[in-house]
Amino acid sequence: MLHQVKESRGYKSDADLTADELKVLCEKFKVKVKEALGNEFPDDAREQLWGGIGAVFASWNGRRAVSYRRIEGIPDEWGTAVNVQAMVYGNMGDSSATGVAFTRNPANGDNHFYGEWLVNAQGEDVVAGIRTPNPLNEATKGEQNKHLPSLETAMPQVYKELDAIRARLEKHYRDMQDIEFTIQEGRLWMLQCRVGKRTGTAALNMAMDMVEERLITKSEAVMRVAPAQLDELLHPIVDPAAEKSAAVLAKGLPAGPGGATGQIVFTAADAVLWAKGGKTVILVREETNPEDVEGMRAAVGILTSRGGMTSHAALVARGWGKCCIVGAGGISVDAGRKVMKAGGREFREGDKFTLNGTRGYVYEGALAMIDATENPRFQAFMRYVDQFRRLKVRTNADTPDDAAKARGFGAEGIGLFRTEHMFYGKNSEEPLFRLRKMIISHDERERRAALDELYPYVKKDIKATLEVMDGLPVTIRLLDPPLHEFVPKREEERQKLARALNISLNDLNDRADDLHESNPMMGHRGVRLGVTYPEITEMQVRAILESTVELVKEGKRIMPEIMVPVVGIREELDDQKAIVDRIYQEVCAKYGVKRIDYMYGTMIEIPRAALTAGKIAQTAEFFSYGTNDLTQMGFGFSRDDIGGFVPAYVEKRILPADPFNILDQEGIGELIDIGIRRGRATRPKLKVGICGEHGGEPSSVEFCHRVGMDYVSCSPFRVPIARLAAAQAAIREAANAKPVKDDAAKAKGARRGRPKGSKNKPKAAGRPGRPKGSKSRPKAVGRAVKKIVSKMAKKARIKAGKKRR
Amino acid sequence: MLHQVKESRGYKSDADLTADELKVLCEKFKVKVKEALGNEFPDDAREQLWGGIGAVFASWNGRRAVSYRRIEGIPDEWGTAVNVQAMVYGNMGDSSATGVAFTRNPANGDNHFYGEWLVNAQGEDVVAGIRTPNPLNEATKGEQNKHLPSLETAMPQVYKELDAIRARLEKHYRDMQDIEFTIQEGRLWMLQCRVGKRTGTAALNMAMDMVEERLITKSEAVMRVAPAQLDELLHPIVDPAAEKSAAVLAKGLPAGPGGATGQIVFTAADAVLWAKGGKTVILVREETNPEDVEGMRAAVGILTSRGGMTSHAALVARGWGKCCIVGAGGISVDAGRKVMKAGGREFREGDKFTLNGTRGYVYEGALAMIDATENPRFQAFMRYVDQFRRLKVRTNADTPDDAAKARGFGAEGIGLFRTEHMFYGKNSEEPLFRLRKMIISHDERERRAALDELYPYVKKDIKATLEVMDGLPVTIRLLDPPLHEFVPKREEERQKLARALNISLNDLNDRADDLHESNPMMGHRGVRLGVTYPEITEMQVRAILESTVELVKEGKRIMPEIMVPVVGIREELDDQKAIVDRIYQEVCAKYGVKRIDYMYGTMIEIPRAALTAGKIAQTAEFFSYGTNDLTQMGFGFSRDDIGGFVPAYVEKRILPADPFNILDQEGIGELIDIGIRRGRATRPKLKVGICGEHGGEPSSVEFCHRVGMDYVSCSPFRVPIARLAAAQAAIREAANAKPVKDDAAKAKGARRGRPKGSKNKPKAAGRPGRPKGSKSRPKAVGRAVKKIVSKMAKKARIKAGKKRR
Repeated sequence: MLHQVKESRGYKSDADLTADELKVLCEKFKVKVKEALGNEFPDDAREQLWGGIGAVFASWNGRRAVSYRRIEGIPDEWGTAVNVQAMVYGNMGDSSATGVAFTRNPANGDNHFYGEWLVNAQGEDVVAGIRTPNPLNEATKGEQNKHLPSLETAMPQVYKELDAIRARLEKHYRDMQDIEFTIQEGRLWMLQCRVGKRTGTAALNMAMDMVEERLITKSEAVMRVAPAQLDELLHPIVDPAAEKSAAVLAKGLPAGPGGATGQIVFTAADAVLWAKGGKTVILVREETNPEDVEGMRAAVGILTSRGGMTSHAALVARGWGKCCIVGAGGISVDAGRKVMKAGGREFREGDKFTLNGTRGYVYEGALAMIDATENPRFQAFMRYVDQFRRLKVRTNADTPDDAAKARGFGAEGIGLFRTEHMFYGKNSEEPLFRLRKMIISHDERERRAALDELYPYVKKDIKATLEVMDGLPVTIRLLDPPLHEFVPKREEERQKLARALNISLNDLNDRADDLHESNPMMGHRGVRLGVTYPEITEMQVRAILESTVELVKEGKRIMPEIMVPVVGIREELDDQKAIVDRIYQEVCAKYGVKRIDYMYGTMIEIPRAALTAGKIAQTAEFFSYGTNDLTQMGFGFSRDDIGGFVPAYVEKRILPADPFNILDQEGIGELIDIGIRRGRATRPKLKVGICGEHGGEPSSVEFCHRVGMDYVSCSPFRVPIARLAAAQAAIREAANAKPVKDDAAKAKGARRGRPKGSKNKPKAAGRPGRPKGSKSRPKAVGRAVKKIVSKMAKKARIKAGKKRR
Repeated sequence: MLHQVKESRGYKSDADLTADELKVLCEKFKVKVKEALGNEFPDDAREQLWGGIGAVFASWNGRRAVSYRRIEGIPDEWGTAVNVQAMVYGNMGDSSATGVAFTRNPANGDNHFYGEWLVNAQGEDVVAGIRTPNPLNEATKGEQNKHLPSLETAMPQVYKELDAIRARLEKHYRDMQDIEFTIQEGRLWMLQCRVGKRTGTAALNMAMDMVEERLITKSEAVMRVAPAQLDELLHPIVDPAAEKSAAVLAKGLPAGPGGATGQIVFTAADAVLWAKGGKTVILVREETNPEDVEGMRAAVGILTSRGGMTSHAALVARGWGKCCIVGAGGISVDAGRKVMKAGGREFREGDKFTLNGTRGYVYEGALAMIDATENPRFQAFMRYVDQFRRLKVRTNADTPDDAAKARGFGAEGIGLFRTEHMFYGKNSEEPLFRLRKMIISHDERERRAALDELYPYVKKDIKATLEVMDGLPVTIRLLDPPLHEFVPKREEERQKLARALNISLNDLNDRADDLHESNPMMGHRGVRLGVTYPEITEMQVRAILESTVELVKEGKRIMPEIMVPVVGIREELDDQKAIVDRIYQEVCAKYGVKRIDYMYGTMIEIPRAALTAGKIAQTAEFFSYGTNDLTQMGFGFSRDDIGGFVPAYVEKRILPADPFNILDQEGIGELIDIGIRRGRATRPKLKVGICGEHGGEPSSVEFCHRVGMDYVSCSPFRVPIARLAAAQAAIREAANAKPVKDDAAKAKGARRGRPKGSKNKPKAAGRPGRPKGSKSRPKAVGRAVKKIVSKMAKKARIKAGKKRR
């Protein structure tokens, strides 16, 4: 209704409305309130205040707040507080103003006072993105806002006072602050300050700067970058070469760093839908609001035509380290028709665009992207990180290329080399065909013949990977998946296979049917294949040992670790060890060597293996936790089939998160803990690691540290994240070693709910998914809450038709 | 070769051969030995002796011995001993003889001296079944052998001496003895005695007799019947009415009790093959030998035309409690042509026959069978049993009929009533169709409508079962299996369903496809259905509570226990409890009652549930271990898919037995133990039971006793077995509570390999699968061993051409 009045009168600002117009509007509001709520709008100020207080409390269970908590992993039981205080007003004429500032640049970390303000306005106007705000000072003006007046020039005395407060706050809090202020008739009021959200790049740069400024220690610097933020630094940026030759379609404010390329959509719902369909989308909005949060999450980039660096879109994107451009005035968005105009042309849903969120440039089409890890500041930060961590970080790599890339990210070995993955990728046709011949073999003779054909491919891959990792350990897992996974589905491929095997298609189909299983995840796979078809194990072990001998003879330092998957019974491991020993003798004899150094160990991914780890460690020299399968068996959740119920579980808070993303420390973690304690009771120097996907998830890495693992292993891109998480775990552990003083910390520890019987209790250390150091909770929620209070208050003021002092 | 000579000369006995014939035969033997072994037969007596000793040791790893151990569950590492001693000879003329005897009748337990002997023969001749032996005394002569001379009349002095020894031995050993003796030129020599094998009927009768004779205590009597033997008493016998009107085709010795009806086969291999094909077979042989053991196992009954009560067939069948008739002289078997003649007619492989093993009668065709549990001796024995056990025994029953039958077997409640089983059996067409409508429903509205239609069927079944169990607790499990299990596979049924739902067949197929899962065992089932479709839980809970109120109003004592399946997370149980509470209020209001007594609990069948049992017990009032699924998840073994590797695991001794038959105490048992301890730490009075199939397996029942469960639940026929196993566990525990004296017992306890961390260690108690009291080991193997020694010795004697004194 306010918007309608302003539009009909041609007003730009709320302050343009006359008192009479406001009176008329208030009557309309009152009618609307009665219509919507069934009650008269209260005239009593206390009643209004209680209404406002109630609204804040109620907002905790609003759809948006709940959705926000789901995304951020904030527990429902935390609740919210209500702060009742006197108001000051920035909308009392041209000597009044309001603003939001950061003590340093939250986008890139630059040590400049950075912010936005509006004259004759309330805070709501700055963050809502309705008016494009003015820059705080001259130094931080950019292309987009150089024509607008800065506070520094408009109100130099007030700016000076504010700048002094900035310095005091940073010195006091030893961190970048997010400040809200109001100027009421020339007098500066500080509304609040809090540790400011920042991009990963900014977090890293500020942390490094503050160490140099002697404001914080190295360990504090390491704690200042959330592992998830590091992710952002590892994400691609627009290739500068490609950018140079492309024409900028529109410019906006660089609200979230990095590059993004994708198809544009115009509603949050579309963004979610398209992303679910596997598409990469950029969400384009005039401005965003909390209803858009899920769509913003689903998009790789966000573009708005309105709003400033502190607008909703900018704040949210920065919190997530997501590429974002706001206030791109050159584009106009028509969400209803799902089109946007830019450079005099019209674009539709599905058109491809590229954003450079670091510069604020919008390009038509998909530009090339490149890595961002060559940044020397990043390298220096990671050197700090490595000074603190105890856990080694390895990588899961299945090809020599992956292995080389992971070394670049700082991997200290390969924790999981999956023999079978050579059959999935490109150039896999020949080996895959030979593997299929082996699988469909009818007896040992046929199978041995097929394995002989397969051998050169397997050996070549293993040898090349071992060579790349010269000097570092490489864990090679023997064949894991059920054989039927590799049987061709298409008739023409079956025909080809049948011809090669000199059998009929019917015969082949029969053999394939024999391999069918009701629950293949718990079927004939892993070591069970090795026990029933020892010749498969023989072939793989021979490839590993021969590769090792040949490379060692070339002067390389090769450290292979033979890992048996899906073990649940110690005797399985003994059975396979007998094969390894036999092949070892044969290879030694063939090459005329006396010994070949290798380790023999097992995955721990079957619950029974964890429970009987004391026996298994009699044979195994190392354990590697396969937490994907351990989560499947431990929960009885088939990862392929959880779609029908796990989303409902997370929704209903039966589970705090998908346990395949964030390790379930209470149940699956208990199995891990039992396994490590029992294994080390048998073999004190047992090497223990993790190679499930949790190995790169920060809260899970912290758990691995606490239970005393030697290393984590994760995908190459997650190696730096795991290194940081490991360092933070070590720093946090050292901090926790000091006596705990406050009850809240104790309560938090207790909440982990460790069963009573378990010994060797790890130190209490926060909830999974949220490192203790992270500070985003009360602020993020506070903003939504404050907005509601502010709205209620505004309505009350408007109704009253006067402004109180 | 011996047989050829005898046949060509028309000799019946080995003793008929002349010295010259023996000399010629020996030369032939020597040629054959050289041909087979490549060495001359040694002339040196010591060398012969060492050969014999070596052969005994080697026999431990012979195919037959290995196969026997697999069947009997005897560990490979036990090994064998060799006993070297001077020989006596029963084949030194007509004043010499040899015999085998039991101090009581091993087939039915009668307190008569029972045995067989042969004049001028060695022990081998008696047990090999080549000559039909004579009865020991007049009292035990039967139809078959009344014309043959008894030892009592032929050598009265020797018989008297033997009878006195019988009395001394029984008094000393306080158990029935199996005796071997030889009479050398009128003088009696005792070769060995051991506790005799017996049928279940005999074991029971002897135990009851010996209590009455004050030879043993009641608790000893309870220990004298192996739970597996009880099985035999529960097996059917030929219906006397049917038998009266049938003509006896042939008569033989009643070597193994009970009745059997099936198709005849003539080789052990065929017996195995046919049985695998799902057929019920009777193995017919001229005589059996150790090579036939697997075939005998596979058959429901055994029939031989030769041999006596101590022949191989009789001994083996009795050990297993299997129906067996031996020495049926009226039939002649031609195994080569796979036919047998009887009553002047020829019968072929596949023809149906019936055996009455208790009387030794053979009938053509399949006669009717009846239960054998009405035996008052059996009832009295079970009353002894119930005096000793602490564990309650319930039954798994899905229908009012099953429930009634189980009460008859002594069930003290229902431990598992599977709601879904009403959709499997006969008369299930209507409810199944309505269930399918519910499953294929597209939204909650459709689903609720289908559930309303289903409700009367579910309530009727539940109410009738509760009524039958008046006064006893009934655990009702909510819907467990994945829904797609109930979707019709056949097109015509899908058509019918589509019409009923007013949708197209394509739509129906789509909905069915949506339900498809990769690993349904770990998919959308159990409580996961209840969480995602609360209306399904509502319907079931309503049926339980309404039935209860209605029956209580009729004055019945109804104790329903609502059990939630597939729980892994305490919050799942809370989610369902909220539904139960809501329906409870509704039902109370509807019937105007203030309270309805029921318990609320959960299956523990997911490893995570066992590990977090401390939390789960905050909500659950009882635990029921679902050891089938717990074994599946704990091992990562899909029960439907283990055929490809578990047989190889048992063969290679990676597993001692199929863990779905015999509970894996080391791994799965550890989970159970952890769950009970943690659950009871939270709720000291937590009721704990087991409802997996292990609940009726004796060694598993003993485990359940040791870890402190309150009850076991098993199928109706296994209830008496579980009662006995529970009593034996209690008696054994009391015995073990006394200080352990011998090292062997200690070593045995240690072998269980309980992980070090675990507390509350159950008392050491033998290996799974073999109750400590069972005595079959050294004897059974001893027989095979002795046979080889005896053969070697015989050859040596024959070669030497003289008989030593």
